[in-house]
Amino acid sequence: MLVVKVGGGKDINWDYIAQDLKKLQEKLVVVHGANYLMDQYSRKLKLATRTIVSPSGHSSRYTDHETIDLMLMVYSGLANKKIVVRLLEEGLRAVGLSGVDGALWQGERKKTIYAKEGEKIMMVTDSQTGKVTKVNTELLNILLAAGYTPVVTGPAVSAEHVPINVDNDRAAAVVATAIGAQKMVILLEAAGILRDITDPRSKLDVIKVRQIDELIDKLGGRIAKKLLGIKEAIAGGVEKVYLYDGRAEQSITAALEGKGTIVEK
Amino acid sequence: MLVVKVGGGKDINWDYIAQDLKKLQEKLVVVHGANYLMDQYSRKLKLATRTIVSPSGHSSRYTDHETIDLMLMVYSGLANKKIVVRLLEEGLRAVGLSGVDGALWQGERKKTIYAKEGEKIMMVTDSQTGKVTKVNTELLNILLAAGYTPVVTGPAVSAEHVPINVDNDRAAAVVATAIGAQKMVILLEAAGILRDITDPRSKLDVIKVRQIDELIDKLGGRIAKKLLGIKEAIAGGVEKVYLYDGRAEQSITAALEGKGTIVEK
Repeated sequence: MLVVKVGGGKDINWDYIAQDLKKLQEKLVVVHGANYLMDQYSRKLKLATRTIVSPSGHSSRYTDHETIDLMLMVYSGLANKKIVVRLLEEGLRAVGLSGVDGALWQGERKKTIYAKEGEKIMMVTDSQTGKVTKVNTELLNILLAAGYTPVVTGPAVSAEHVPINVDNDRAAAVVATAIGAQKMVILLEAAGILRDITDPRSKLDVIKVRQIDELIDKLGGRIAKKLLGIKEAIAGGVEKVYLYDGRAEQSITAALEGKGTIVEK
Repeated sequence: MLVVKVGGGKDINWDYIAQDLKKLQEKLVVVHGANYLMDQYSRKLKLATRTIVSPSGHSSRYTDHETIDLMLMVYSGLANKKIVVRLLEEGLRAVGLSGVDGALWQGERKKTIYAKEGEKIMMVTDSQTGKVTKVNTELLNILLAAGYTPVVTGPAVSAEHVPINVDNDRAAAVVATAIGAQKMVILLEAAGILRDITDPRSKLDVIKVRQIDELIDKLGGRIAKKLLGIKEAIAGGVEKVYLYDGRAEQSITAALEGKGTIVEK
């Protein structure tokens, strides 16, 4: 069993990915983001993109009700269905699901978030964000058993039945753990994990899980969140996580051949 | 087995519908529209809403690629997932699907449409519209068998794997026929089929299927399309179609008790 997580960057090539997915002879779940499209439509709808910086320095999208509505439109609607159609074209029996469908991604809404504005620490209580804590594996399993390929994206749903924004990388890790996937592929807009983001030659070929915390501190940003998800996936039983460039031809095959970065125990 | 088709009007009350659906002890598929939301977001995104008038006088939404994208956002995303969350809250195991998921609604794109502009008849070749001709009943059946409630909306997908705008009322009729539903409930913003749209007291209590053609000619507009769907549903094996007011409390129960309009053989 394989989980393929595809980032939502501008240049991710779904034609290549779809052609490559078709060749895999394994049952798989696709998890995807839609960050680039989300920013585009935020601008079109003149929705202010607000960023929250946590006291420890991590920044994330501030999610109010309007933002969640737009996420339902862009992630669960436009991006998800366009991917489904592209996979259908290659003969995959793709079914798009958001985290709310059948309570597929269940999480807890963070009731209070502390955010930094300059030197001031503020309390934010209306943020619709959280973390996936449980996956409806039954729903994934009945689809997989019938030969379908689930294509999953956020938002998730809280215990109070409110859609919540979650980190798709970490959610993919919870999915991989829940369905007992041995392998996870993460496609991003880089050849793997780079020691220096400005230098493509600084790619790390293999990372041992014990090195992750140090890398999280050193690299920060989006990559730190990805590494956190990877650490959770391996702690949850995934054997190896393969990162590679989602802009390249045969990106999944290349990832599994170790052409990017492999993270392992 | 029951199909419940809910219109996408502004005042449809999903709180009432969710509470009522919970009480039904029957397996069911929900099909919904999102017309009001679609118009709102068309305005927000300054998308021109263009109408096509067929030579015979029927008008419909002109659907180009931008419109299909917005349909994926509003119908398959925002509206569908908000309904799913509302049904989850009532304890229903709702799973939202668009017609593209698992090629649930398969149709043919109309390659050429003839449209009327004043006295001129024009040919339109880039319209992304069509008609559902086949339903992936397997996907609905595995979800129903596992205790899920499928919540379905447009667009559909063409044989060339392009999303196409279809009439949701007629698609619901094809679904009812395909899954062998005996009953179909249609909730709209009126107490049933009115002989005179301006007079709520002109409600028809019972319509025999042989009277439908005459009513289609007489009433025209949206109601004519609904009646066409109903005629197709009954021709396909549905025994009775119940129409009632989706703004009212216990609308489905009331519909099934014959408080609106019943259409039968």
